[in-house]
Amino acid sequence: MSITNDAYAARFGCSFVEDGGVTSAAGFKAAGVHAGFRKNPGRLDMALVVADEPCACAGVFTQNIFCAAPVQVSKEHLSEGGVGGPAYGTARAVVVNSGCANAATGEPGRENARKMAAITADVVGCTADEVVVASTGVIGVHLSMEPFEVGVPAAWQQVSKQGGADAARAIMTTDTVPKECAVTFSGDAIGYPGVTFTVGGMAKGSGMIMPNMATMISVITTDAPVAAPHLHTALKTAVNMSFNKVTVDSDTSTNDTCFMFASGAAAPEAAPFEPGTPAFEALQAAVNQVCAALARLMATDGEGATKLVTVSVYGAATPAEADLAARAVANSPLVKTAIFGHDANWGRIAGALGRSGAHFAQENVYIEIMGMPVCRDGLTVPFDEDEALRRFEEPEIVIEVDLGAGGEGTTIWTCDFSHDYVSINGDYRS
Amino acid sequence: MSITNDAYAARFGCSFVEDGGVTSAAGFKAAGVHAGFRKNPGRLDMALVVADEPCACAGVFTQNIFCAAPVQVSKEHLSEGGVGGPAYGTARAVVVNSGCANAATGEPGRENARKMAAITADVVGCTADEVVVASTGVIGVHLSMEPFEVGVPAAWQQVSKQGGADAARAIMTTDTVPKECAVTFSGDAIGYPGVTFTVGGMAKGSGMIMPNMATMISVITTDAPVAAPHLHTALKTAVNMSFNKVTVDSDTSTNDTCFMFASGAAAPEAAPFEPGTPAFEALQAAVNQVCAALARLMATDGEGATKLVTVSVYGAATPAEADLAARAVANSPLVKTAIFGHDANWGRIAGALGRSGAHFAQENVYIEIMGMPVCRDGLTVPFDEDEALRRFEEPEIVIEVDLGAGGEGTTIWTCDFSHDYVSINGDYRS
Repeated sequence: MSITNDAYAARFGCSFVEDGGVTSAAGFKAAGVHAGFRKNPGRLDMALVVADEPCACAGVFTQNIFCAAPVQVSKEHLSEGGVGGPAYGTARAVVVNSGCANAATGEPGRENARKMAAITADVVGCTADEVVVASTGVIGVHLSMEPFEVGVPAAWQQVSKQGGADAARAIMTTDTVPKECAVTFSGDAIGYPGVTFTVGGMAKGSGMIMPNMATMISVITTDAPVAAPHLHTALKTAVNMSFNKVTVDSDTSTNDTCFMFASGAAAPEAAPFEPGTPAFEALQAAVNQVCAALARLMATDGEGATKLVTVSVYGAATPAEADLAARAVANSPLVKTAIFGHDANWGRIAGALGRSGAHFAQENVYIEIMGMPVCRDGLTVPFDEDEALRRFEEPEIVIEVDLGAGGEGTTIWTCDFSHDYVSINGDYRS
Repeated sequence: MSITNDAYAARFGCSFVEDGGVTSAAGFKAAGVHAGFRKNPGRLDMALVVADEPCACAGVFTQNIFCAAPVQVSKEHLSEGGVGGPAYGTARAVVVNSGCANAATGEPGRENARKMAAITADVVGCTADEVVVASTGVIGVHLSMEPFEVGVPAAWQQVSKQGGADAARAIMTTDTVPKECAVTFSGDAIGYPGVTFTVGGMAKGSGMIMPNMATMISVITTDAPVAAPHLHTALKTAVNMSFNKVTVDSDTSTNDTCFMFASGAAAPEAAPFEPGTPAFEALQAAVNQVCAALARLMATDGEGATKLVTVSVYGAATPAEADLAARAVANSPLVKTAIFGHDANWGRIAGALGRSGAHFAQENVYIEIMGMPVCRDGLTVPFDEDEALRRFEEPEIVIEVDLGAGGEGTTIWTCDFSHDYVSINGDYRS
């Protein structure tokens, strides 16, 4: 049931690359610079990721009605799937700024997003619609173009295989650490003997809960050969099992954006991966792995978080109800404050399940916290409080629920609630 | 649009009673005692409200699947509307304890709730099914009967017309102040010349967000003559416009309970109020007024709250979408932290509206904060930041939204987020 899907990844020989990131895959370079969106000259605030050649690109975006100008413009630039269809096409570069979201800025905002792409295209040497864009920061403020005039040429001068780390740092807002990872998989057993493929990426959170509109931005790259429509399918599948399972409401902020590029540079002469083949399955496993790792990093880096919290719900009547139930628990401030307070207060979990909208009978519910049964048949189970306290020392707190209402399940990641606010709620039982 | 409905109340001559509460209406007495559910002997932890005679009683309860034993037993005792039907019947007393919720306790929990009623019935001199019960506190722990053996006789000795204040204090958990109010209305213009009717009540919150399962308990009394089924209608209508519009998720906790008693003692020989008559409309206005006042007190008393926050949404396509949109704004930690930080950051309001599920077009949205337009046609409106700061000094912050998508609207009450947790989010724009 683990969404990280280690077994699946292992089957395809995925393994993590040390210090891997958005430039681990062949055919990509990156840089992060201080362009001037932020006042502090020591803070990187613009990232550029470029492919050596125009290549397949796909995007997955926020569903928020107030979707930002860069989202609208990137959709225009990835329009091979048609208006309102899946966002994919050909692209050479992605430019991302932090400090201003360019959201709720109307037609002038869209003009600025188009100009941001045009400036980048001029410098990189491609067409404007081969550049996709993302912005994160304050909403309702117009985006300055001057920093791009300075920053894009500076970044272009600096782009390198080592630049992924700076790029990951440049897209941070309230994040406390940059978020990067990469995995490789062998082509030996999937029809590409002797080739090693790489999928890498970077992402930004997301504070505790929806800070800074919780903008989630991620750029994933691979050197596997994949056509744009199939790349979109793989990306969408991975996003639904990873970023969309982190409860920072990031799936619905104004600027959420995830791009994926496929250069094919690991096997330039080879036939592209086709859906349904072992090669495509291996790629999917690798993309899942990278997105899940980045999503877990996002949850772990919640503002003030002391714990990664994993909520798994089994035995739901439908996948949608499993999701409702797991989200209700993961979003409950009461549950999150109890975890911060190292309090195995399962009543709060039960309360969240009961109001989630999922259908079940109270007397069929089973709940475990850190592997300790705390509720069976809807009733309290005596447990060793000292042992519970010991288990709460772990960096990841696992809550597992069986609703006893069916065969569906899901896993959601979140973080605990700390700070003084929590001191009121965290020790309620004492 | 105000849910307090002052104009409506004024039309029926409702006016607030100074220091009014659950015993303001004729025919009711109350007491609050330390029965022993809590360790601190100075803390009242059990309330008893008794009618001089058995009278009409109605109840409205949580929809949570994990509904508590006292809720289940009170439904049994108010079963004249049939199983699964509206909860009403005849009752003489209500007993409420704090410190233990008697929730997720199975059949033994129901037995305890029945015993709690039986003990009270023995002391008061009525049948057990003429007693309704409520509990608030920790979930999953069995309720001790000993404190009732001591506390109910003590409370019965003390019940008085002045005891409403103690009763309101005894039901508090994380509440910082007791919550009581009462209104009167004249019978002159509604067919009951020379009679003054009273509706009064008490309630407990609810901390910041769902603390202590945010149990909401309220007891409302009136001396107007009303049959039990009609009393249920009036109560349900008032609850939907008041307690159910406070976003502490109290509408869905395990123990939420609102009882209303009608003694008829103001006009013992008079015919009961019939739905559709001016008398019933006047009663409804008074009940609405009392419930709304108590609901606003609950929101104001959120843990750590510095502001009451009122979110009104107009121009929604349906009442359900108005509710979704207003709740998304009122529940947004980002909006609440911005209010604590005195930051008119309307982008966070827009973000919440955009992900609420309500249908509208970005370019039709209008937003006012404290009467200042901040967003028109979905775009930012320049405003005087100093004036905004001045208006944020008010104890109640009003956010008004027009979605431009229809003719429906609603109002939701909440509080801001304070504490250190908030210091991270509250000043994001600076």
